[in-house]
Amino acid sequence: MAKRVTGPEIEKLIQLLAKVPGLGPRSARRAALHLIKKREQLMGPLATAMGDAHAKVKICSCCGNVDTIDPCTVCTDVRRDQSMIIVVEDVSDLWALERAGAMNAAYHVLGGTLSPLDGVGPDDLNIKGLIDRVAVGGVREIIIAVNATVEGQTTAHYITDHLAGLDVKITRLAHGVPVGGELDYLDEGTLSAALRARTVI
Amino acid sequence: MAKRVTGPEIEKLIQLLAKVPGLGPRSARRAALHLIKKREQLMGPLATAMGDAHAKVKICSCCGNVDTIDPCTVCTDVRRDQSMIIVVEDVSDLWALERAGAMNAAYHVLGGTLSPLDGVGPDDLNIKGLIDRVAVGGVREIIIAVNATVEGQTTAHYITDHLAGLDVKITRLAHGVPVGGELDYLDEGTLSAALRARTVI
Repeated sequence: MAKRVTGPEIEKLIQLLAKVPGLGPRSARRAALHLIKKREQLMGPLATAMGDAHAKVKICSCCGNVDTIDPCTVCTDVRRDQSMIIVVEDVSDLWALERAGAMNAAYHVLGGTLSPLDGVGPDDLNIKGLIDRVAVGGVREIIIAVNATVEGQTTAHYITDHLAGLDVKITRLAHGVPVGGELDYLDEGTLSAALRARTVI
Repeated sequence: MAKRVTGPEIEKLIQLLAKVPGLGPRSARRAALHLIKKREQLMGPLATAMGDAHAKVKICSCCGNVDTIDPCTVCTDVRRDQSMIIVVEDVSDLWALERAGAMNAAYHVLGGTLSPLDGVGPDDLNIKGLIDRVAVGGVREIIIAVNATVEGQTTAHYITDHLAGLDVKITRLAHGVPVGGELDYLDEGTLSAALRARTVI
């Protein structure tokens, strides 16, 4: 803004909101005005929730999940089959798989994928932690659920190689046609994979 | 989420973030994870900024602008021509006009438009405040800068009628072709207005 038309506290709030993913400079202003209009119902509680989360958030020292306790809710959940570990790139993938609700397993968050061009090596990821968890024993299966990208597959190979000597079954997510997907919109790689992995009806 | 995979503080944060305009349930999760990753650089400062704003925000008792002082920065700005008042529907319109930077005037925020169907009458808007400001004297011109919608125009007429007895010039924003706009994409009403209000080159 050319001239100041509002208080510095409000301008500061807009500046910071604009850094939140999903909000840009324009939507940050709209969000700030909405928060100001709903200051008792939304702005106050959100400020408190954010302060609380900021004070309490921890990264689980076992699996790399985000929580307010360490070890996290997933690692300490006795109703989960802790002998199966789903390996994911990011906490958002863990949340996505949990929304699907298909498995009742433990997780391991790598924190990214191997990417030599970006200077991300094995030591930058939570891979040693995974090997240690398997080496301790009691793990039957590792399900590698990384993205189907070049970096994801490279990471999957690296993990498979380094778990080779240990007595654990290693699996990966199936490739195929997304449920509800239209063939015409799918790439050749997916179609080939779906054909190769065809199943009897 | 079917089962708890993270702390209640984080789930609460996601729930509240999802109520911010521009963020939905999915982007609220992404925003929360980003905030958690950047908790020192972004989450902490944002929690503080939001708490500050929540504690200090006031609605200007003169013009209806949002600020941390009352009367607001605009009303107390002696470098502005306080004898010209731009009447807008919402604070966001005030901010938009200030970004244009074309006028150095005062403002008056109505807080909406007349809309009998939604039960919004003259008493629900900050119209009496405007008439009082003009009645006190010292106001040369009222520029009605409401949206070019039916409700906006109804509101403009209502205000014009109620300022009729007072010694003040009342103007409205020009209708015409938006700068950078293509004729082919404009509606007939805009094109007719632009033709009627044609100017000599």
